[in-house]
Amino acid sequence: MPETMPVRALWFGDGGLHLIDQRKLPGQRQVLHLSRVEQVAEAIRTLTVRGAPAIGVAAAYGMVLAARQPHQSPEKAARLLRSTRPTAYDLFVGIETVRKAWAAGEDPLEAADGYRARIVEECHQIGAAGAPLFRRRPRVLTHCNAGALATVEWGTSMAPLRVAWERGVPIFVWVDETRPLLQGSRLTAWELQQEKIPYAVIVDNAAGYFMASGQVDAVIVGADRIARNGDFANKIGTYEKAVVAKENGIPFYVAAPWSTFDPRRPNGASIPVEERNAAEVLRIGGRPLAPSRSAARNPAFDVTPGRFVTAYVTPAGVVAPGRVGEFASRHRTDLTGTA
Amino acid sequence: MPETMPVRALWFGDGGLHLIDQRKLPGQRQVLHLSRVEQVAEAIRTLTVRGAPAIGVAAAYGMVLAARQPHQSPEKAARLLRSTRPTAYDLFVGIETVRKAWAAGEDPLEAADGYRARIVEECHQIGAAGAPLFRRRPRVLTHCNAGALATVEWGTSMAPLRVAWERGVPIFVWVDETRPLLQGSRLTAWELQQEKIPYAVIVDNAAGYFMASGQVDAVIVGADRIARNGDFANKIGTYEKAVVAKENGIPFYVAAPWSTFDPRRPNGASIPVEERNAAEVLRIGGRPLAPSRSAARNPAFDVTPGRFVTAYVTPAGVVAPGRVGEFASRHRTDLTGTA
Repeated sequence: MPETMPVRALWFGDGGLHLIDQRKLPGQRQVLHLSRVEQVAEAIRTLTVRGAPAIGVAAAYGMVLAARQPHQSPEKAARLLRSTRPTAYDLFVGIETVRKAWAAGEDPLEAADGYRARIVEECHQIGAAGAPLFRRRPRVLTHCNAGALATVEWGTSMAPLRVAWERGVPIFVWVDETRPLLQGSRLTAWELQQEKIPYAVIVDNAAGYFMASGQVDAVIVGADRIARNGDFANKIGTYEKAVVAKENGIPFYVAAPWSTFDPRRPNGASIPVEERNAAEVLRIGGRPLAPSRSAARNPAFDVTPGRFVTAYVTPAGVVAPGRVGEFASRHRTDLTGTA
Repeated sequence: MPETMPVRALWFGDGGLHLIDQRKLPGQRQVLHLSRVEQVAEAIRTLTVRGAPAIGVAAAYGMVLAARQPHQSPEKAARLLRSTRPTAYDLFVGIETVRKAWAAGEDPLEAADGYRARIVEECHQIGAAGAPLFRRRPRVLTHCNAGALATVEWGTSMAPLRVAWERGVPIFVWVDETRPLLQGSRLTAWELQQEKIPYAVIVDNAAGYFMASGQVDAVIVGADRIARNGDFANKIGTYEKAVVAKENGIPFYVAAPWSTFDPRRPNGASIPVEERNAAEVLRIGGRPLAPSRSAARNPAFDVTPGRFVTAYVTPAGVVAPGRVGEFASRHRTDLTGTA
C-alpha cells in the first residue's frame, strides 16, 4: 500500500487549514487557506469540504484555529462548529477530541494531528480488511463519494477498491452521479481517473437496471452515522440502492472508521437528517431545471436499516451485522453531553 | 371532466404536424411545424416529442406527411419511423395503423385522426377508472412524465390525478426529477403548475426517503411497453421505485392505453431497451458534470417485473396483475411482422 495518495482533501500548515474546494471539482482544483474557525465552519456548511471523516478532521483543525484567536473558548468554538451540519457523527467526534484537549490545557494542534492520523490509519485498515471482498466481485457500484476527498486521503468505501486494484483485481466501478450535488460524477469519477481505475458514470436511476441485469457484483458505500443496531445514515439515495441490491441478491457493504459509530443511538430512527436548500434540486450551476416558483424538498441523507447490510468494513475487519454494536463499543467514541 | 386541456402536446393542421418542442420546456414554449416525415422521425429521435402514446400519434401523422411526399411508400415511411426509437410499443402501433390504411388505399389522415382520437379517449377512460384509487391516497409519487405532453393531452399516469383533483381530492404530487433528461422537473412540474395542483420536485434519490418516512400514499407511472405477463418497460429508474414501493407496502400503479400492450412479448426479458448517448449523463445544457473523458452508460429505460405492480389502470378499468394479459388480449393491437 503506498504511503502517499494522489489526492489529499486537506492538510494543516503555515498557521492554517488548507483544503481543496470540492465545489469546484472536477473543473478546477483550487486550494483554500483558512486561518479562522469561522471560515472552517462556513467551509463545512457550504460543502467546500464534505464527507463525514473529512469534516470531522476539518472541524478538529477549526478548533485549533479557534484556540489561536482572541475571544474564543473551547465551548464557544465547539458550539459554532457543531451547528454547521447535523448528520455526520464524525463531525462531533472531531470537535470533541480537540475541545477536551484544549479545555484540559493540552496542545490543541497535537490533538487534531492525532485525530487526523487516526482517521488516515483507519482508512488504511479499512482498505486492507475490505479488499478481499472484491477479489471475485470486481464490478462494484458506489454511491456519492467516500474516497480520499471525503476522508483526508485514501477513503472509506474506496479504500478496499484501491487496495484490490493494486493487487491486480480488475476492479470496475459503477459511479452513481449522486444528485443533487453530483459527488459521484464530480468527485468519485475524478479520484478514479487520477488512479486510472476503470469506471462508468450512471444516473442514480440506472443503478437498479445494472443490478437486475447482472452487471453489478457488489455495492459499497460510506456512512455519515451508524447506530448501535447497524442502521446507518448516508447520502440520499443510499437506501434505494440497498433495497434494490437485496432484491437482487447483491452484497451491500458499508465502510466506516470508528468516528462514524454513534453509541447513543440504538437505531436509525433518531438520527437527525439534514434538509438543505431547495435550490440545490431546482438548479445546476445557476441553470434552472424546473419551472420558476416550483416547490422542492431536499433531504441530504436517508437512513438504511441494518437488515440491508451484508457486512460493515471497519478498521478492525469485516463485521457481520449482528456483531456491529459489540465491535463498535470497543472502539467508538462516546460523546455524552454533546451533539 | 373538461373537454379541453390547458396543455396539448401536438396537433395536425395547415398541412403539417404542430408540436411543442419538449426539449425547451419549461423555459420556453415553442411550437414547431413539421411538413415532412423525415422531420417527424428526427423529432422523435431527438425527444423533441416524447412519451410513448405521443410518439405513436406523432408517427401516425408522420405517415400522413409521407403519403403526401414524392418517392415515398407505406413501407419505406414505416421503416424510417420505426428506426427512431426501439422501446415504446405505441410507436409501432401508431405507424402500423396508418401504414395499413395507406396500403389499402384508404385516407391516411383519417386513419391518423382516428388513432389520435382513440388515444385521447383512452386517456380520459384511464382518468375516470383510476381516480378512485387516490381518494384516500392523495400523496402520490410519479416518475418521468406521463402527462398531457406524453400523450397528446390529458395523460396516462396523470389522468387519474387530474380527475381526482377536479373531484376535490387534495392531490399532492411528489415529482421525481427523472435524470438524465429531467422529464419530471421540466415537464411534469410544468403541467402541474398550469393546473395549480400542488407538487414538490425531488431528486430521484429521495423517493425512497419519502416512501420510508410515510409521506407517499401511492406511486403511479406510465409505461412504454407492457408484456403479456405484466412486466413493463418505462423510464430508467421506474424499477427502483417499484422495488422500494413494495418494500414499504405502498401501492404501485401502471397506467397505459392499449397501444402500450405488446401481445408478442410473453415477459419483459425480450423488450428492447434503448441506450442513448453518454453526453446526456455527462452534461446538462452543455455544462460538464464529470471529468472530461469520463465513460458513462445511459440506458433510457428499465424493465419492472409485473410482481411489483399492484394494478394496471387501463381504459377498461383497474386490472389486477393476474388478469392483465386476458384484458389486453381483448383490446391490444397485434402487429405481427412489424417492429
